Amino acid sequence: MMYKNEAYLKNYFLSHRDVTKDLIGMIEKDKYDYRPTPTSMSAKELVVHMLTSFHKFAAIAAGRDPVQLHEENDDWTLNELADRYTEESVRLIEMLDPAKIDEEIDLSQSMGTVMPAWRLIETAIDHEINHKGNLFVYVREMGHTHLPMFVKNP
Amino acid sequence: MMYKNEAYLKNYFLSHRDVTKDLIGMIEKDKYDYRPTPTSMSAKELVVHMLTSFHKFAAIAAGRDPVQLHEENDDWTLNELADRYTEESVRLIEMLDPAKIDEEIDLSQSMGTVMPAWRLIETAIDHEINHKGNLFVYVREMGHTHLPMFVKNP
Repeated sequence: MMYKNEAYLKNYFLSHRDVTKDLIGMIEKDKYDYRPTPTSMSAKELVVHMLTSFHKFAAIAAGRDPVQLHEENDDWTLNELADRYTEESVRLIEMLDPAKIDEEIDLSQSMGTVMPAWRLIETAIDHEINHKGNLFVYVREMGHTHLPMFVKNP
Repeated sequence: MMYKNEAYLKNYFLSHRDVTKDLIGMIEKDKYDYRPTPTSMSAKELVVHMLTSFHKFAAIAAGRDPVQLHEENDDWTLNELADRYTEESVRLIEMLDPAKIDEEIDLSQSMGTVMPAWRLIETAIDHEINHKGNLFVYVREMGHTHLPMFVKNP
């Protein structure tokens, strides 16, 4: 089934993650703590949430234990973190077993539901798109007016 | 094809559109012209763009001519418009011919590409999720702090 295999899912993921990375590239270090309202996530919190959430979903879909790829206090930039998590997330998608991509995964503990691996990846992509939609507003509020399309090569 | 048929696509669409409608319900009439920055769409422009874009994509996927369901100068609220466009968009998804859902649609004029009907609907949903992500920030900036999850019953 063409559209649920790991090649389809990898391209679909990257068509959005590449845009996320473009937006991250527009966030200067002195804007990491920017938040639109007092109850909003800061730019840094939002980006770290996007990168780690997708990676966690992809690990679960691939039947691996999710691991964190950074320490809060280490010296990294959001660009470096984006590269690190994206590379590892792609590796996890490539590990998806075609024979098991339709198998239901029990997410009753975390999400209160059950879904096949391919759908977990698609839900993770939707989560990325949602927060990328937040990020577009943040980056415009930082003064950028030339922003990319929301997806590359749809 | 269980997972990309019209029932799947309708539920998938509504799991996001229902959240969009919740957010629209938080926009008071005196905030319709709110825009986060001078180059941003206003709240009203953003919502109308979301409603009409999805409806247009769904019409093309169903092989119908896209029509506009409102006049700019008529007396409507965003809530009314959301109901009207959502109802009609669902009707179009229900009209998708199961035998043709995999058939490639020529979008070279509008999007410079070709994709099957099911994927056009999913791209339209991604477009909705992206702008709903914008809308979450708008609504928080209007003073709302209790916001829904980004998707219902994932």
